[in-house]
Amino acid sequence: MTDRIEAYVDANQSRFIEEVEQFMRFPSVSAQRQHDADTRACAQWITDHFKSLGFDARLIDIGGQPIVRASAKGKSSKRVMIYGHYDVQPEDPVDQWQTPPFEPTVHDGTLYGRGATDDKGQVFTHVKAVETLLKTEGQLPCEVIFLLEGEEESGGDALARYVTQAKDELQPDVIIISDSTMYDANTPAITYGLRGIVAFEFAVRGPNADVHSGAYGGAIANPAMVLGQMLAACVSPDGKILIPHFYDDVAPLEDWESEMFRKLAFNDENLMREVSVPRLHGEAGRSTLERLWTRPTFEVNGVFGGYQGERSKTIIPAFATAKVSARLVPHQDPDRIRDLIFEHIRSICPDTVRLEISGFMTSPPVLFDVNDPAIRAAQEALRKGFGRETAFIRCGGSIPVVSTFVEQLHCPVILMGFGLDSDRPHGPNEHFSLDSFIRGAKSAAHLLQTI
Amino acid sequence: MTDRIEAYVDANQSRFIEEVEQFMRFPSVSAQRQHDADTRACAQWITDHFKSLGFDARLIDIGGQPIVRASAKGKSSKRVMIYGHYDVQPEDPVDQWQTPPFEPTVHDGTLYGRGATDDKGQVFTHVKAVETLLKTEGQLPCEVIFLLEGEEESGGDALARYVTQAKDELQPDVIIISDSTMYDANTPAITYGLRGIVAFEFAVRGPNADVHSGAYGGAIANPAMVLGQMLAACVSPDGKILIPHFYDDVAPLEDWESEMFRKLAFNDENLMREVSVPRLHGEAGRSTLERLWTRPTFEVNGVFGGYQGERSKTIIPAFATAKVSARLVPHQDPDRIRDLIFEHIRSICPDTVRLEISGFMTSPPVLFDVNDPAIRAAQEALRKGFGRETAFIRCGGSIPVVSTFVEQLHCPVILMGFGLDSDRPHGPNEHFSLDSFIRGAKSAAHLLQTI
Repeated sequence: MTDRIEAYVDANQSRFIEEVEQFMRFPSVSAQRQHDADTRACAQWITDHFKSLGFDARLIDIGGQPIVRASAKGKSSKRVMIYGHYDVQPEDPVDQWQTPPFEPTVHDGTLYGRGATDDKGQVFTHVKAVETLLKTEGQLPCEVIFLLEGEEESGGDALARYVTQAKDELQPDVIIISDSTMYDANTPAITYGLRGIVAFEFAVRGPNADVHSGAYGGAIANPAMVLGQMLAACVSPDGKILIPHFYDDVAPLEDWESEMFRKLAFNDENLMREVSVPRLHGEAGRSTLERLWTRPTFEVNGVFGGYQGERSKTIIPAFATAKVSARLVPHQDPDRIRDLIFEHIRSICPDTVRLEISGFMTSPPVLFDVNDPAIRAAQEALRKGFGRETAFIRCGGSIPVVSTFVEQLHCPVILMGFGLDSDRPHGPNEHFSLDSFIRGAKSAAHLLQTI
Repeated sequence: MTDRIEAYVDANQSRFIEEVEQFMRFPSVSAQRQHDADTRACAQWITDHFKSLGFDARLIDIGGQPIVRASAKGKSSKRVMIYGHYDVQPEDPVDQWQTPPFEPTVHDGTLYGRGATDDKGQVFTHVKAVETLLKTEGQLPCEVIFLLEGEEESGGDALARYVTQAKDELQPDVIIISDSTMYDANTPAITYGLRGIVAFEFAVRGPNADVHSGAYGGAIANPAMVLGQMLAACVSPDGKILIPHFYDDVAPLEDWESEMFRKLAFNDENLMREVSVPRLHGEAGRSTLERLWTRPTFEVNGVFGGYQGERSKTIIPAFATAKVSARLVPHQDPDRIRDLIFEHIRSICPDTVRLEISGFMTSPPVLFDVNDPAIRAAQEALRKGFGRETAFIRCGGSIPVVSTFVEQLHCPVILMGFGLDSDRPHGPNEHFSLDSFIRGAKSAAHLLQTI
């Protein structure tokens, strides 16, 4: 049986690649209005593709970009939901692409083009997995529902609304998502934890306009200086977050995780080279992986205030702003952390300026039980598909839809990613290893058989 | 004699106003290339005006905008140099002007238009003062050299180069400048101290591009956060500059100054209202005037780094920058202070980022002896012209050309200003009180007679 799956995928490899290239040719850039028709055409194409495989497939219009829903019954009554997204990031900066972003190309065993890894290529591994099972076995081993959204790259909430609305009807036993990464190019991975997030911005407002720093300097507070002093009162130079009670609920690293992290033998030098920093930085006494995956952060995403042009302009800025986001870990509650942060920010802001806090958003961290049978099945499927042991990893980033699934659908979520951070998702020359694409399709088919 | 001067100015008042309006009609915006011809035409107009008064007047081309030099001998061999500038700031924001910036208008005893107070209107008080003396006395009481530059508003160095080059020939006994302010609308003032300045910018560079704050947050330093921490390590929340040895050479306030500052009865509430700040701020235990005029500052003129668009983008910025300027007071040496600041900035920058310091400029503070006979003569002239006691004030700002004069020409400088900060120099609807214009012309004539 396993041999039939592997053989089918291998035999149809070049057609699979041609098809994923068709999928990638649609400039389904959900953030850009002028691509609304392309985005819908892309959704229609994949819907029709599901129909051609015998799926009951349709577009769901719930406001925003359409959701593709495709389902097919299987041998067992078990219901697997596969989530992905067919929309892509804008192609900017266009001039840095070596091949046109929407004319997919294969070069040296790698598929280039927008969406190659994020997420059309990864979604397509599952589409070809169900085709493989249908063609080799005549039917699916279980019921499969694909739910592909078109707003992942533009922050839309159509899917969250749909899931909340249709939760009683959806009721999956397990959810599979391939929108994450392998541990490295040779090591397949299951992501069992994601950090949550609190993001907001604040403005420190001083004089009613930029004023002369000679005429007023020494008499009134400088909003840009106050901003710096406030940021410094949030994080110490040695990386400790200074917001009272911020760490109260942080789950300590478990022994098996410490052990596993050590075995992963993360290479600090590689990371330093990757982003060209002179030295790594973070909380003292903790390994890089521990800091990235299991510890919260408080980051400045942007600061602005005053004069930005050439040379100097000696003013006291009218205001200064900071965009800030904190990554959260189990079991930090994002609403509580938001309140703690806001309270701290307010308490450290001097009464010589006016403070405005705005635009926050939150998403909770998630942590899955690595001993869940579904996750163990995925581990086994990846071992078969890749011929390698699977790493259990956490992710420093946040995937808000995952926490929506957890909250609304109460079932295990398998995050098995086939991409790499170096695939340049969101960047120019986005690409995806064909080897990972094929091994991913095989793994996905194995998983559906054993789940 | 005094009566003749007053009578002549009063009798010719409306012609004086017509003439200054002609002077103001030239859009002599030195910062903008497209106005180079206008700027030169303006210089030529005032040169011709000097010739019509019997002055030996010409344009000096030394690179950059021309300098107007006009001289006339007088009864005594004493030589007075009068400095001013005929160039103006750009008119932006044009839509906020209630009358066209280069079509001067008189309304309610006030002259509106670009250059009204800064500095065409103030320069013209001296031009009309020499005319008055020539017409009433037949000759000037002393030799007068006008030196009017065309690059004051665009940071050019033509005048500094000319003064350095021609210093042996210039050799004035005293310099008069009217490019500053009165103490208030009713109180004429002599500015006897100016703060100096050190301005520079620095950049904190981290990863080679903006990177994902989930993928890297906790592992590498955040340049915008480092910037904030560094700024906070330069100035304490209570306004003390934390740079070692920064205050070493600061001249303490003398008793007569303390007494005088108290008498000036500066109104903090007015200042708060003027710039709409909830509370004033500065070094503890010192009055507002003391902080503005006699204490150094360390101000952030601009900060920038990372994402500035709508909503949030969860990145760690590749870099963050700050433009900084410190105002200096006697007897701080700007080169020493620059070195102290740079040394401190380098010492507090962590090795997780790269630091770049660039683009500094310096100008020394100046302080004149209020008992200098020239300054006492100006006090007396202002008393006559305004019918009020003259205030001795310092200025929080810096006028770099004054320190060039002090260094190159070694003579007393009289800063007698007829403007007000509320005249909106550099802003829309710049204006100048006609009463100050006329009283200024009278005072300038009185001064030349008694100096």
